[in-house]
Amino acid sequence: MTELEAPPGQEEHTWRPARFMVIAAHPDDADFGPAATASRWIDEGSVGWLVCCTSGDAGAEDPDTDPLELAALREREQRAAADVVGYEGVTFLHMPDGALVNDLILREHLVREIRTFRPDAVLATDPETLFHRDRGVNHTDHRAAGFAAVDAAYPVARNPMAFPWLAREGLAAHSVRRLYLFWSNTITVRVDISGTIDRKLDALRAHASQLKDFDRVERSIREWSAEVGKDLGVAAAEGFHLVVIDEDDEDEAEADGAGAAADAGELVESEAAEAGSTTGGRPGS
Amino acid sequence: MTELEAPPGQEEHTWRPARFMVIAAHPDDADFGPAATASRWIDEGSVGWLVCCTSGDAGAEDPDTDPLELAALREREQRAAADVVGYEGVTFLHMPDGALVNDLILREHLVREIRTFRPDAVLATDPETLFHRDRGVNHTDHRAAGFAAVDAAYPVARNPMAFPWLAREGLAAHSVRRLYLFWSNTITVRVDISGTIDRKLDALRAHASQLKDFDRVERSIREWSAEVGKDLGVAAAEGFHLVVIDEDDEDEAEADGAGAAADAGELVESEAAEAGSTTGGRPGS
Amino acid sequence: MTELEAPPGQEEHTWRPARFMVIAAHPDDADFGPAATASRWIDEGSVGWLVCCTSGDAGAEDPDTDPLELAALREREQRAAADVVGYEGVTFLHMPDGALVNDLILREHLVREIRTFRPDAVLATDPETLFHRDRGVNHTDHRAAGFAAVDAAYPVARNPMAFPWLAREGLAAHSVRRLYLFWSNTITVRVDISGTIDRKLDALRAHASQLKDFDRVERSIREWSAEVGKDLGVAAAEGFHLVVIDEDDEDEAEADGAGAAADAGELVESEAAEAGSTTGGRPGS
Amino acid sequence: MTELEAPPGQEEHTWRPARFMVIAAHPDDADFGPAATASRWIDEGSVGWLVCCTSGDAGAEDPDTDPLELAALREREQRAAADVVGYEGVTFLHMPDGALVNDLILREHLVREIRTFRPDAVLATDPETLFHRDRGVNHTDHRAAGFAAVDAAYPVARNPMAFPWLAREGLAAHSVRRLYLFWSNTITVRVDISGTIDRKLDALRAHASQLKDFDRVERSIREWSAEVGKDLGVAAAEGFHLVVIDEDDEDEAEADGAGAAADAGELVESEAAEAGSTTGGRPGS
Amino acid sequence: MTELEAPPGQEEHTWRPARFMVIAAHPDDADFGPAATASRWIDEGSVGWLVCCTSGDAGAEDPDTDPLELAALREREQRAAADVVGYEGVTFLHMPDGALVNDLILREHLVREIRTFRPDAVLATDPETLFHRDRGVNHTDHRAAGFAAVDAAYPVARNPMAFPWLAREGLAAHSVRRLYLFWSNTITVRVDISGTIDRKLDALRAHASQLKDFDRVERSIREWSAEVGKDLGVAAAEGFHLVVIDEDDEDEAEADGAGAAADAGELVESEAAEAGSTTGGRPGS
Amino acid sequence: MTELEAPPGQEEHTWRPARFMVIAAHPDDADFGPAATASRWIDEGSVGWLVCCTSGDAGAEDPDTDPLELAALREREQRAAADVVGYEGVTFLHMPDGALVNDLILREHLVREIRTFRPDAVLATDPETLFHRDRGVNHTDHRAAGFAAVDAAYPVARNPMAFPWLAREGLAAHSVRRLYLFWSNTITVRVDISGTIDRKLDALRAHASQLKDFDRVERSIREWSAEVGKDLGVAAAEGFHLVVIDEDDEDEAEADGAGAAADAGELVESEAAEAGSTTGGRPGS
Repeated sequence: MTELEAPPGQEEHTWRPARFMVIAAHPDDADFGPAATASRWIDEGSVGWLVCCTSGDAGAEDPDTDPLELAALREREQRAAADVVGYEGVTFLHMPDGALVNDLILREHLVREIRTFRPDAVLATDPETLFHRDRGVNHTDHRAAGFAAVDAAYPVARNPMAFPWLAREGLAAHSVRRLYLFWSNTITVRVDISGTIDRKLDALRAHASQLKDFDRVERSIREWSAEVGKDLGVAAAEGFHLVVIDEDDEDEAEADGAGAAADAGELVESEAAEAGSTTGGRPGS
Repeated sequence: MTELEAPPGQEEHTWRPARFMVIAAHPDDADFGPAATASRWIDEGSVGWLVCCTSGDAGAEDPDTDPLELAALREREQRAAADVVGYEGVTFLHMPDGALVNDLILREHLVREIRTFRPDAVLATDPETLFHRDRGVNHTDHRAAGFAAVDAAYPVARNPMAFPWLAREGLAAHSVRRLYLFWSNTITVRVDISGTIDRKLDALRAHASQLKDFDRVERSIREWSAEVGKDLGVAAAEGFHLVVIDEDDEDEAEADGAGAAADAGELVESEAAEAGSTTGGRPGS
Repeated sequence: MTELEAPPGQEEHTWRPARFMVIAAHPDDADFGPAATASRWIDEGSVGWLVCCTSGDAGAEDPDTDPLELAALREREQRAAADVVGYEGVTFLHMPDGALVNDLILREHLVREIRTFRPDAVLATDPETLFHRDRGVNHTDHRAAGFAAVDAAYPVARNPMAFPWLAREGLAAHSVRRLYLFWSNTITVRVDISGTIDRKLDALRAHASQLKDFDRVERSIREWSAEVGKDLGVAAAEGFHLVVIDEDDEDEAEADGAGAAADAGELVESEAAEAGSTTGGRPGS
Repeated sequence: MTELEAPPGQEEHTWRPARFMVIAAHPDDADFGPAATASRWIDEGSVGWLVCCTSGDAGAEDPDTDPLELAALREREQRAAADVVGYEGVTFLHMPDGALVNDLILREHLVREIRTFRPDAVLATDPETLFHRDRGVNHTDHRAAGFAAVDAAYPVARNPMAFPWLAREGLAAHSVRRLYLFWSNTITVRVDISGTIDRKLDALRAHASQLKDFDRVERSIREWSAEVGKDLGVAAAEGFHLVVIDEDDEDEAEADGAGAAADAGELVESEAAEAGSTTGGRPGS
Repeated sequence: MTELEAPPGQEEHTWRPARFMVIAAHPDDADFGPAATASRWIDEGSVGWLVCCTSGDAGAEDPDTDPLELAALREREQRAAADVVGYEGVTFLHMPDGALVNDLILREHLVREIRTFRPDAVLATDPETLFHRDRGVNHTDHRAAGFAAVDAAYPVARNPMAFPWLAREGLAAHSVRRLYLFWSNTITVRVDISGTIDRKLDALRAHASQLKDFDRVERSIREWSAEVGKDLGVAAAEGFHLVVIDEDDEDEAEADGAGAAADAGELVESEAAEAGSTTGGRPGS
Repeated sequence: MTELEAPPGQEEHTWRPARFMVIAAHPDDADFGPAATASRWIDEGSVGWLVCCTSGDAGAEDPDTDPLELAALREREQRAAADVVGYEGVTFLHMPDGALVNDLILREHLVREIRTFRPDAVLATDPETLFHRDRGVNHTDHRAAGFAAVDAAYPVARNPMAFPWLAREGLAAHSVRRLYLFWSNTITVRVDISGTIDRKLDALRAHASQLKDFDRVERSIREWSAEVGKDLGVAAAEGFHLVVIDEDDEDEAEADGAGAAADAGELVESEAAEAGSTTGGRPGS
């Protein structure tokens, strides 16, 4: 919130959240995903938090692997990677790997995390990605984590009557204002990561149990980042599908108390905005 | 069914169902949605019915609000709004606000409603809308209600062996012929609401518990409706994603008894039509 | 794997799997779907297997029909049709018609089938099809079967730690390399079925309980196939949305043991590939 | 209701329902259970109906048995047996064998059956039987069917607001007045079946798919019936755990309209009766 | 905890909890149940709290009754009755009437209530009561509420790692020491209610929507209370099935910090106690 | 099967299974339970296997304990204890601590274990124990594990059509012949453990994370075992509720192939036996 937003397209995306939360399905997802953007934002003053829905207990080649020991190992790896990136902390929700569903239980956990950390932006896997440009399937857990992150961010986290015991116990409603969706087929903004791509690779190295041929990983990451960066004229970039829930000026209005409205699920302002932007075709500006 | 269908595109949509049912997730959704189209159709002789899946029991700013009292209040507001529009009746299914799922229970309820009222067209939220043109999230309840409405309309309502006790008890299979999906990112038809936009605003006013700044709501509704109307050269319009399940001439054939087939889920005519229109790439006309 | 892959577009698709599995929701879906492609591939040396998730126990017009007798009848019809096409066998999973869900139970059944038969390619209904080009609804069971087939094919079937008892009991992990999705709104490849369209019609004839006016079915099938074929300059074709999970050269590398990796859910190679092809925007080639 | 009730203990139980319903988990349960009592009551003028929750699709020795064909066979056997006993009809609910649960779905089905047939008494397996006098386990389906039968009989069937659509569609609330629980470890009443034990054996013979050594079955049935009959001084008897929900004189009062109360779940008369008979220790008379 | 415990049997039960919580399925259950004991304990200095799992939304004779309005009415009635008894407060959990299940959701709600109010004793319906001495069925909701109350009281409320977010947010583990189960077939203690039976009747009168013939209710309550009292030689009594989880001297030891152990689910002291008292057959004293 | 069975009552129980399986909810349950009996049987030539449904991940006093690390620690402790007793192996099912339910998933896992190890007897917690002689609550997980063990042992493990894929893949049906239920309020047999009580205490010592005051544990175990032993005139004993599913002579008959019957769920021999022993009141001998 310290810089102006660049228009979508070929210019660099420079808006930056003061606080952001990455919600991922498995350990290592966040590092294959937006780790370099997270590193850059943290370097520039943002505070980040990582939430892993599962601990990756099904991520090995031997069916006799002890899933609990594997999960413990992968948590250690993810904590080490998170230290490289610079997150303030990591939460593991211990949901089952391979069986993640966007149900009320997962959403309540995520709302708890969101209301505790109170991020301006949530970064999550794009739930609309079923196939990666027809070159692979997006893991069912990624889709579930993405849907749950979106639903938790809006409207649940901002609705005091959703899981009302949370608000009663001090976890007040909180409005996440933006979603940055990674692994999307609809990239709308690009972040220059020339300065932090090495941090991303260092973070990935921490996931040793999942890496067999790190040279190949590094080669792939560098190639693809270069391609996304090409449009911006930079050496490396990460791309996102950006969804703006609340504009900055709306926030200021709210901060001023002028016309502010707690977004209690169905309050009219957001409803009208939704209705208008879709039925009525309001231009994006 | 009293007027010819206009081709999709920039011309006004003039086909009108003799009977239609609006299926909404929460009280007020139908009024932020297609209330002006519903009003116009009713004025012109159609009969409408409204189904609210939840009673909006999570729609307030104070977590200590009594959800049952809030639900009762919102039902009264929705009944008042429905009177403004002119629906013949309203059904509340009392599903939980914020926890709607497209499961067999919700579908059976909707099939019961559809077979009782026997609408030609169902109006529902477009379930494919996850984001409103990247300017907001479509509430999980809206998506669930949309999916359930679509599935109930086809094939369940028309399949006598789906929930077979319903048919045995007199709720005979019924074929919904069209879906009008609102809050869509894929508007294919536009209805001129110049004559009924004020009724829509009056209906919205009935939802007093949800409105803090009605002037702002009115301004938004008028602006967006004007934009959708611009393409038609009219002062105000509502836009829909139209899905035609049965063409009018198919209906007539059925009414004649010539080649008629109850569409029992997997009967060949509809199956062939589906197979053809998708695998084979039949043009849309 | 005996022929080179043609580039997507207007040229004929000539890649052919040595072994393929068709996963369908109901008896007759596979025959309205890819029966002619399956027939051609089998004629040319491929081995095929058919899995029906339900036995179509809700597919009749009389609510007093005995669903178990109907299911038994439809299984006989499907077995007869499968003989016409030439599948090596058919499995019925006996899931409930009209109530199919993509849950762990269905996925485990499908993984069992996949690991037993070990197909190179899985053919299934495209789960992203909600509406058939706005001319009909894609049955909820079709969508559920499609999602479950995709998730079972990747990553579950190839992850030895998914349902680990299966691997321990001898059902070793298996990598499905391609998905051919039928009833798609996004056709990317076309197969010439001029030589086997009559077999498809013969297979359809076996579903007598579902056919009232076979002439009409035949007319529709022939018209639509002709349309899909027109782009290729052939008399008849079937179209698919192709998703390539593993390229052929990746397979060879794996066969050589060079850099091979069991794709244990989250292994880095596939993860990096996914991350790259989506976040980074790698071109499709 | 045509005879006086005998006191519990060693005297013959002579009360007889005008209409009764047997609720069983599997085909053949009703015939191993109260078939001779049912036969006698029918001979004396009662009308009986049989409900089978499952069709016994898991009841064979070969895992490759087609469960649908087996179910169809067992339904035919059960219908033949029901003809021997003289039931007015049989309903199969087609729940899955081995997976029966006392959930809302099963209860709604049973309430539908009860309100349609309107029995005075329901006969079901005693849900409290986990072990048969420490000589065997009572099948989980038997326990589930017993619990569901009890809950459906009271309070659901008599509460118009339970599944309220049923009452609205004409299935008016109905008060089952007595439960006769078979396969109980707590026999409280005995019925002389000397005159109908042969009918029971004839009914059992109809379940040919389940019988390997009918002589052994016959020997067992005769021995055990003789033992139960010994206390009464009769050649053969069946024993039940009787639960009286409404006394006959309560019914008459209700029929007279004096102090009648629809037992709407929590209405005070039954509640007070319950509270009194348990907290307060009212004697059994 | 201010008086010595009387031995079970025919003497009056004089132990009294400093704080107690009544957990009931429906409004009015607590008043048909232990209202007079609660009144007496409150008069003597105890503090009480009432939790209603449902709001009784299915408790009326007309299927067209609005369940939300009925629930709101019954909550008002229950609050009025609670004022008569003198509870410090009432919580409604808004679970569905007729569909209560002892699942994790209900248990978490009850643990939240227990850890907030921190009662020494929980009063609940005896979950083992399926039939009221063979003169009626114990409502499925009563059994579910009873099981959930027992499980919430032990071990969940006292295990800090059960729903660990609760402890982290300040709802520290709490040990309920006694269960008083009403509507039991196994009365082990009796409380003299001669002085408060009129308060119980006043509380019952507040449930006007559920009462048609209050004279009959009063007559029944008085008769049955007299019977339970007869054994004690008092005019009226309520009976309970008492389960002592922690003896008073254990508490004192804990209060002293000597050998104290948070009962973390499986900690050895309680485990050993359990193992011993059951496998080993320790006498009841 | 090497010794004659003693009549129930005060004589020592000397029947011994050649193979037995202990099914427990948590690590340490088996050691607080029948560890000394297991040790003795193993010393005398039996082969034993231990199945833990959960890994006790909720068994600590600090809500911030990492549940995965705790589970891994407790598995190590349980493996050490199992070595003391002499089990041939231990299986952990990794179900969630505190949330165990007797559903199809747990039952399928247990059937897999039973059919693999093929025990004559299963030892499990008595599912009918809700309260330990009114001195404590039996943990909900214990009840769930007990019910699941009973249902898996009979009829599921012996029914080839239950989870038919298991039999097809080589896990042939297996008949468990006896259940020994520990932590029961209905002890019917006693085993002299004078020679192995020290082994039980050694096994318990391995659960160091759960033990704070081992002297107290040892004192309790010794006292209670002495009490159970008193009736037998021995220094220490463990008591069980014994349920005989198949008598030894039935087995022999089966082994001879005379009148043998696979107990396919509902086959007549076992059904008749059940029906007879309960409805008809066959004496226990």
